[in-house]
Amino acid sequence: MATQHVQRMSRLMARTLREDPADAETLSHRLLVRAGYVRRSSAGVWTWLPLGKRVLENVSRIVREEMDAIGGQEVLLPALLPREPYETSGRWSEYGDLLFRLKDRKGADYLLGPTHEEIFTLLVKDQCTSYKDLPVILYQIQTKYRDEARPRSGVLRGREFQMKDSYSFDVSDEGLAESYALHRAAYRRIFTRLGLDHRIVSAVSGAMGGSASEEFLAPAAAGEDTFADCPGCGYAANTEAVTFPLAGEGAAAAGEHPPLEEIPTPGTPTIETLAAHLGVPASATLKNLLVKVDGEITAVGVPGDREVDLGKLAEHLAPAEVELVTAEDFADRPDLVRGYVGPQGLGKVRYLADPRVAPGTAWVTGANKPDTHARNVVCGRDFQVDRYLDVAVVEPGDPCPQCGAGLRLDRAIEVGHIFQLGRKYADAFGLDVLGREGKPVRVTMGSYGIGVSRAVAALAEQTADERGLSWPAEVAPADVHVVAAGKAVQLALAEQAAEALAAAGRRVLLDDRAGLSPGVKLTDAELIGVPWILVAGRRAGESVVELQHRASGTREELPLPEALARLTS
Amino acid sequence: MATQHVQRMSRLMARTLREDPADAETLSHRLLVRAGYVRRSSAGVWTWLPLGKRVLENVSRIVREEMDAIGGQEVLLPALLPREPYETSGRWSEYGDLLFRLKDRKGADYLLGPTHEEIFTLLVKDQCTSYKDLPVILYQIQTKYRDEARPRSGVLRGREFQMKDSYSFDVSDEGLAESYALHRAAYRRIFTRLGLDHRIVSAVSGAMGGSASEEFLAPAAAGEDTFADCPGCGYAANTEAVTFPLAGEGAAAAGEHPPLEEIPTPGTPTIETLAAHLGVPASATLKNLLVKVDGEITAVGVPGDREVDLGKLAEHLAPAEVELVTAEDFADRPDLVRGYVGPQGLGKVRYLADPRVAPGTAWVTGANKPDTHARNVVCGRDFQVDRYLDVAVVEPGDPCPQCGAGLRLDRAIEVGHIFQLGRKYADAFGLDVLGREGKPVRVTMGSYGIGVSRAVAALAEQTADERGLSWPAEVAPADVHVVAAGKAVQLALAEQAAEALAAAGRRVLLDDRAGLSPGVKLTDAELIGVPWILVAGRRAGESVVELQHRASGTREELPLPEALARLTS
Repeated sequence: MATQHVQRMSRLMARTLREDPADAETLSHRLLVRAGYVRRSSAGVWTWLPLGKRVLENVSRIVREEMDAIGGQEVLLPALLPREPYETSGRWSEYGDLLFRLKDRKGADYLLGPTHEEIFTLLVKDQCTSYKDLPVILYQIQTKYRDEARPRSGVLRGREFQMKDSYSFDVSDEGLAESYALHRAAYRRIFTRLGLDHRIVSAVSGAMGGSASEEFLAPAAAGEDTFADCPGCGYAANTEAVTFPLAGEGAAAAGEHPPLEEIPTPGTPTIETLAAHLGVPASATLKNLLVKVDGEITAVGVPGDREVDLGKLAEHLAPAEVELVTAEDFADRPDLVRGYVGPQGLGKVRYLADPRVAPGTAWVTGANKPDTHARNVVCGRDFQVDRYLDVAVVEPGDPCPQCGAGLRLDRAIEVGHIFQLGRKYADAFGLDVLGREGKPVRVTMGSYGIGVSRAVAALAEQTADERGLSWPAEVAPADVHVVAAGKAVQLALAEQAAEALAAAGRRVLLDDRAGLSPGVKLTDAELIGVPWILVAGRRAGESVVELQHRASGTREELPLPEALARLTS
Repeated sequence: MATQHVQRMSRLMARTLREDPADAETLSHRLLVRAGYVRRSSAGVWTWLPLGKRVLENVSRIVREEMDAIGGQEVLLPALLPREPYETSGRWSEYGDLLFRLKDRKGADYLLGPTHEEIFTLLVKDQCTSYKDLPVILYQIQTKYRDEARPRSGVLRGREFQMKDSYSFDVSDEGLAESYALHRAAYRRIFTRLGLDHRIVSAVSGAMGGSASEEFLAPAAAGEDTFADCPGCGYAANTEAVTFPLAGEGAAAAGEHPPLEEIPTPGTPTIETLAAHLGVPASATLKNLLVKVDGEITAVGVPGDREVDLGKLAEHLAPAEVELVTAEDFADRPDLVRGYVGPQGLGKVRYLADPRVAPGTAWVTGANKPDTHARNVVCGRDFQVDRYLDVAVVEPGDPCPQCGAGLRLDRAIEVGHIFQLGRKYADAFGLDVLGREGKPVRVTMGSYGIGVSRAVAALAEQTADERGLSWPAEVAPADVHVVAAGKAVQLALAEQAAEALAAAGRRVLLDDRAGLSPGVKLTDAELIGVPWILVAGRRAGESVVELQHRASGTREELPLPEALARLTS
């Protein structure tokens, strides 16, 4: 290893803070700011200080090596992109407020790239003409922009962030499956090398379009995603992507149910009041939520003991916009009786339902009259479901869709996402190549992302403890943190240790700051979280140092040569 | 060296073009596009394809190593910056149309950073409190944005581009001088390692403010800068920064001139017609150009054989805006007689002049009446100069300001610029640290830039020939370009060579494309410009290859093992 420069804390742009920043909610946010890795520039926009920049660079290097290993070609596309291709794909408007838009001096419209499917499709259209030119995998590590409504948790969800995005182009579905498998394996290696505990779960494709998609989730309390995990069969999925089978088997035939009967239920506008009034479980009632989908009133039915997951609903119906109905909407539609809606009287209103509302099941639900409900309302007999959608909130203990065992739910951070996009963008831009038989073949595409800056935060979340950060070796900003805990003797020994380590190729942080107590320096060292801490302290006069292992907390006194040998072996 | 991946041309995203792009004016633009290094995304915005990205990465690595070597700390600031600090410094408006401005979803104003003095000043204000924390040098390699009126010459002048910007912070002028000297030396090493022929010349600071400033210029026909170069004493300066001494010595005393005399000169509104009419050299006449400086009419006097360099004038008067006067302005001011303006009758109009218009010099100039001039118009007697400015276009052969020898003029590309900014930004943001004597000390600052993407273009300009690009070893996208010039035998030998070279740590480009003639492949190899080209061709059956050195054009047939030994020694 080449000789390294010793980084001296006396000059290092990394002022540590004793207090948590006022707006910090998550562990990684608090610690990355306190340890001097990042500073806030504006809402959701961050400056990476020297320590943070090194970790970011280490993560990027690992990503780059593994992308190169699967034949990925690194490119760099602009962040400033013209409107037209995003108009062609529809995303100029679909992205809504999430897109940063701007005009140049001539008034032409531009955007700051949130992701680059359109531009890569055009690039391949320019570069590739024959099936012989494919498959290709292109990637970049680049600054991305999304004008999040609620940027939060530090660099975990920023408005300007670092992302590795890659794109595969193939002539066949089998080719796409292979490119996808290559990425899946590369991502496993990347997250493993990063030292990041992660799970691969099924995901919904959302606004990206396309078919198969999986997420790489890093379990962490600060995570914004929830995933379901089956202890029985190993099934794992983002709760947004959990799909339950239609409960067709257990349901009775429609004819076996008594006829629909309306019953007066004064003062029962909620499921709780209704279930109590009738003495039935909430799960026997049918809750009907009214929403507007691109402005059109739509009803969503779930069993009364379930909540509708609006995020999930929005994902399923994207790019259509989903809003809750308002009091004004009810005022405009006297046929919709607030608190007493039932699917049997909705006329032309589109009806979406949870799979538990299966054909042949009977329900207690609203009678579309004030203070009145109906019972024995049978799906398929008294009302029809226009589309089944898994939009109910998944609860711990819900049966695994694969084996029926009770699901566990956990919070996690999405650090990677891989998509089989298929031909959506190739269709939009007419991306064909000449096929083996001499005829044009439409190209099929995959899209793959790793949140590089987010991965730094996820790693911090998983590895930190109450004393501070604690980085895995491959991503740490230094290999050894040498602390001069005392005066001249300690400083001399620390300098000697630092130079020897640097000469042996180790990346060294040297706390050579004057006028600080050993206690303050050691607290800072633990906060900064370099894997090894070498302290020149009490016994510096005899050339004995203390070697601390940050993650395990073990510490040991030993002669400097021995410590150096251990750290450079 | 670690084993490298062989990059196969059959998959490489680098489609070469036979024809020059229609809009390409400069050599580097033509060749970087034709050789598949870059592709245009929109005006002045470029995609870096794999070969281009590698060169960019190599340049960045060298910059990083040399910045680290002078103690620079790498950080990464956002490109998306809030309006407020740029409002404080005045640059939010001074930058005019050059700034990309945008609003976020809440309507707050942002800009895309063209350079980051403001933000670094705020960062140091947040991080440093004592003189003990200084000096520091911070740098980043980052995407910058400038909405150029005429983006051109490919990546030479883009609207989105890669730049290394660094900033030094010191407590004393001596400290700043030292930080500046460190940068100057680091820049020399960087450009030398890049293999870039370069000159250090005096520069004007322009809109950046501050005092001392030098440019690193790479001589090239495509350059937009002109610099003057003295073969006598080694003086070198951007022509915008050449300053001539006041010609006071040689001038006669005002009293020695005859009195001012008006003479009828019908039909002589230009210097040429006037000089011919009177039979005097153009250099004896005084040309007075009228401009508006922030809307106020101002006259600029230069000898009649000189042109006013409007760019230079704008630089000197920045941030004030300079415009030419229009016919409407003359209509508003009947005292200003177009074609017959003289400084002796300008009343309150501010008069700027070239140093050649020294006190005691006598001129033929306009008499401020139609068809009339005046002679024996003496500076200091008949008119006063409000301010001397070097705004005349410098001509080849002009005397060197240092030694008087005739100057040479050359075109060049500005690849680096170093500034001693002084306290301009520290004053704007109140950046003080506690000094050695316990009192606040205002910090002084330097700002230093290297156009990383522009350096790639400059290198291409200097090293290319009519056959294509020809990269210096340290920045080349590969070390060896192995060409399979033929069929199965050639391909097998080429594969063998490529694998052996990669195993020895050499970066290899392998032209394994099927169905292309050896001629096409060799033309592409010369176009792409990797330093060594190894051809498995005619004598592949006997394991004999041809080794070409791209820059010198030498070629030699030799057995493969010998070629490999030469390339890996």
